[in-house]
Amino acid sequence: VTFGLGELAERVGARVIGDPARRVRAVATLARAESEDLSFFTNPRYREQAAASRAGALLVPAGSELAGRDLLVHEQPYYALALLLDLLHPQPAVVPGVHATAVVGAGCVIDPAANVGALAVLGDRVRVGAGAVIAPLAVVGNDVAVGAGSVIHSHAVLYDGTWVGERCVVHSGVVLGSDGFGFATHRGRHVKVPQLGRVVIEDEVEIGANTTIDRALLDETRIGTGSKIDNLVQVGHNVRLGKGCLLVSQVGISGSTVLGDYVVIGGQSGASGHLTLGDGVRVAAKSAVFKDAAAGEQLAGIPAVAAGRWRRQQATLGRLDELRRRVAALEKRLGGAPEAPPVDDEEEK
Amino acid sequence: VTFGLGELAERVGARVIGDPARRVRAVATLARAESEDLSFFTNPRYREQAAASRAGALLVPAGSELAGRDLLVHEQPYYALALLLDLLHPQPAVVPGVHATAVVGAGCVIDPAANVGALAVLGDRVRVGAGAVIAPLAVVGNDVAVGAGSVIHSHAVLYDGTWVGERCVVHSGVVLGSDGFGFATHRGRHVKVPQLGRVVIEDEVEIGANTTIDRALLDETRIGTGSKIDNLVQVGHNVRLGKGCLLVSQVGISGSTVLGDYVVIGGQSGASGHLTLGDGVRVAAKSAVFKDAAAGEQLAGIPAVAAGRWRRQQATLGRLDELRRRVAALEKRLGGAPEAPPVDDEEEK
Amino acid sequence: VTFGLGELAERVGARVIGDPARRVRAVATLARAESEDLSFFTNPRYREQAAASRAGALLVPAGSELAGRDLLVHEQPYYALALLLDLLHPQPAVVPGVHATAVVGAGCVIDPAANVGALAVLGDRVRVGAGAVIAPLAVVGNDVAVGAGSVIHSHAVLYDGTWVGERCVVHSGVVLGSDGFGFATHRGRHVKVPQLGRVVIEDEVEIGANTTIDRALLDETRIGTGSKIDNLVQVGHNVRLGKGCLLVSQVGISGSTVLGDYVVIGGQSGASGHLTLGDGVRVAAKSAVFKDAAAGEQLAGIPAVAAGRWRRQQATLGRLDELRRRVAALEKRLGGAPEAPPVDDEEEK
Repeated sequence: VTFGLGELAERVGARVIGDPARRVRAVATLARAESEDLSFFTNPRYREQAAASRAGALLVPAGSELAGRDLLVHEQPYYALALLLDLLHPQPAVVPGVHATAVVGAGCVIDPAANVGALAVLGDRVRVGAGAVIAPLAVVGNDVAVGAGSVIHSHAVLYDGTWVGERCVVHSGVVLGSDGFGFATHRGRHVKVPQLGRVVIEDEVEIGANTTIDRALLDETRIGTGSKIDNLVQVGHNVRLGKGCLLVSQVGISGSTVLGDYVVIGGQSGASGHLTLGDGVRVAAKSAVFKDAAAGEQLAGIPAVAAGRWRRQQATLGRLDELRRRVAALEKRLGGAPEAPPVDDEEEK
Repeated sequence: VTFGLGELAERVGARVIGDPARRVRAVATLARAESEDLSFFTNPRYREQAAASRAGALLVPAGSELAGRDLLVHEQPYYALALLLDLLHPQPAVVPGVHATAVVGAGCVIDPAANVGALAVLGDRVRVGAGAVIAPLAVVGNDVAVGAGSVIHSHAVLYDGTWVGERCVVHSGVVLGSDGFGFATHRGRHVKVPQLGRVVIEDEVEIGANTTIDRALLDETRIGTGSKIDNLVQVGHNVRLGKGCLLVSQVGISGSTVLGDYVVIGGQSGASGHLTLGDGVRVAAKSAVFKDAAAGEQLAGIPAVAAGRWRRQQATLGRLDELRRRVAALEKRLGGAPEAPPVDDEEEK
Repeated sequence: VTFGLGELAERVGARVIGDPARRVRAVATLARAESEDLSFFTNPRYREQAAASRAGALLVPAGSELAGRDLLVHEQPYYALALLLDLLHPQPAVVPGVHATAVVGAGCVIDPAANVGALAVLGDRVRVGAGAVIAPLAVVGNDVAVGAGSVIHSHAVLYDGTWVGERCVVHSGVVLGSDGFGFATHRGRHVKVPQLGRVVIEDEVEIGANTTIDRALLDETRIGTGSKIDNLVQVGHNVRLGKGCLLVSQVGISGSTVLGDYVVIGGQSGASGHLTLGDGVRVAAKSAVFKDAAAGEQLAGIPAVAAGRWRRQQATLGRLDELRRRVAALEKRLGGAPEAPPVDDEEEK
């Protein structure tokens, strides 16, 4: 099927420049697009490459219009791209049914419009909503709920009691509900503190491949609606994420830390346990947060400080050798060696 | 079932304040506990919240007794909590048997009191001890041993030859015995050095979800008795951990590094290869150890130095701008611009 | 079977010192080797331990010959070791056939010399080359290709459309082709940008346990021939690695970053998105690359700078307290308190 440019513009809230009757069939990159393709750029630095593209039409950011081309112009081209990809490349519909090789426990309630794949293993009393998918070889423990429209990819493991809302995506290798890391050391033994809580994933959450989220000691570890978690992220027991948080890959959040709404944490960063990060806190990549942060704070560094302060520290660090030379010059001008400084800060052992 | 407070006190070595005949049924958090629940706090800062709890009884640290409540008082309340959770919330017993859909190789010796779950795959000559559990869809290679009382969760993979002791817990997604990262670069090709050793997990070890432990080049990668490893940890080939080590989530230990007993490594920290960290070494979170450390050392930073020195460095860093201003003030008092410093430290390429 | 030392020397390009007729049966470590074993050391610091070994013969680096022993001497002993392990400990041949419990989709083309293990799940139109292995419980999606001689270990997941070349090794828990982390935030919602590209793994690539490589938005995420990736590494969407790259464990490469040939990135390091790292760039462990790097650059630190500069910064940091004392001494010599410095750099909020 093909779409007219005018029709697409209406669907995604874009403006057409050029021929609204121009028809496109697919979205393609600037380098590969042909005359029936719609291509795009979201960053003005690709403007020149776009001018050279053979794409039949282009989605461009407002302010980066190209002359002589058929264009969709949008203030938020990345958002428009998301909608256009959905329109031009719709996902195949879920095929209902439970595969003959799946192993399904007692008392399960599987919506007739759900799909359970080959060799998936479901425990007892599992509920699966309409349009949900349990992919081949996924493991869904006892008393787990998977909401309507959610997809549990192959080799994801949902331990007993896990609750997943609607329209979530849980990628392969994700583990939800493994035991929190809790041990009480007594006379040289690390005695396991039983982890009896569960994991709750609210609606429209996506969880990337091989990410792990531990069950709470009691009560819940909870991921708020619309939060998106990248690959290989660790979320400790009793952690709570608000709505719309973003955790980039390889982030680690230690136990009992609470994130407000729309907290964003850059890749490979971590937060220690029992902290509170307020709404809208942003943490730069490769940082380590060891203290609470008020709403709206922007943090960077190890240990993390206000991002502006971190930038100044970095600048000063780059001029340290210069400072050392200036001190040496002052000492020379004052003549003679300075009095011997007291030695009180040698490395202790 | 319910327990009397006096009976619980005796079982866990606590002291009762209030009514020893008070009966409790379950452990619950301060916020959710009701009159038949035992709640707890292990940190005095939750004392006020505890006073407001509707819990029928409270486990509290010695020195934080609350007036007018029925209490269990313990010097190590977190340890007592571990015991109480075991008493009040016992794990269900293992149901013996091999599921009909499991695939079991030749020459396996599976204790009649062990459980092998649906669609688990066991290679040849596997030994599984009494009370051990191989959960659904776990993979246990040829010549693997799983000791009595150990649990191998779903989607864990034990490569050929892996040896797991007694009372261990191996969480979902754990990979034991994958090849070490060994390549000899010869004329532009990274030639694989075959990895022929194995992984040995001693008794009472817990390994968190999606952690990976590589087999040795020859001989063994070995995790000592009672060590506890969190999620998403990487342990390289030929690494040895002593007894009672704790590796927090996302730690990485490079090949051939040897840890003594009771070494503790904070989250997201790493140690490079061929190091020796003595007994009781403690490494702060988000650190990188590049040198050997003697027994008892406490390290922090990238690169890791003695923790006290790291704290002083951080304090000085926070006052660098002040130092620069003081040097500028000195230069001003001495009059005129200082002699131009030699420029010898530009960034090389 | 046993091999004569002279024969081994010829096969691996080594020189014999001592008795070329000496026969060995296996490779063993210095500590465990017996008279029929060949042992080795690749680092001269193990020379003394080697002298005490009971090994019948020793592989040693040129320049570290031991008197009175039967030796193989090689300029690149680690490379020679790789070859000797292959000779003395050959891998068992692949047993062709598809296990009766495997679930195979429609239109698959599986070479008769390939092996598909128990409970593996293959989608539709999968192609598997000669001598390739799909291990038990591996998941291979629709339209996936696995080239001749490649091994897909248990619990690896290849999402739809993934292409794996020849003689690759994909370890357990690896996820290839999960969705890239792409969301367009619009009015408080993170709208998913559909990820429609694929992952392409060229020939002779090895990918370590639980590593994740995301599919491209469109087009490809591509890993170049001969590259080796360790465990728990994250590779974002649209990333491209050239030939012969080495990514050590827990590395993260953000979306659209391009690595040239023979780039080496140390453990726990990361690179942010949309960067270009030229051929032969080397990044130290625990670093964070936020800028492009020209061919041959060596980088270290957070943020990463030239490795030489990083070392000087570290040295200066270690002497900061001394510098502070020197400034205090100068102030004292000039008499009186210095004029109060302006306070202009307090932490902003």
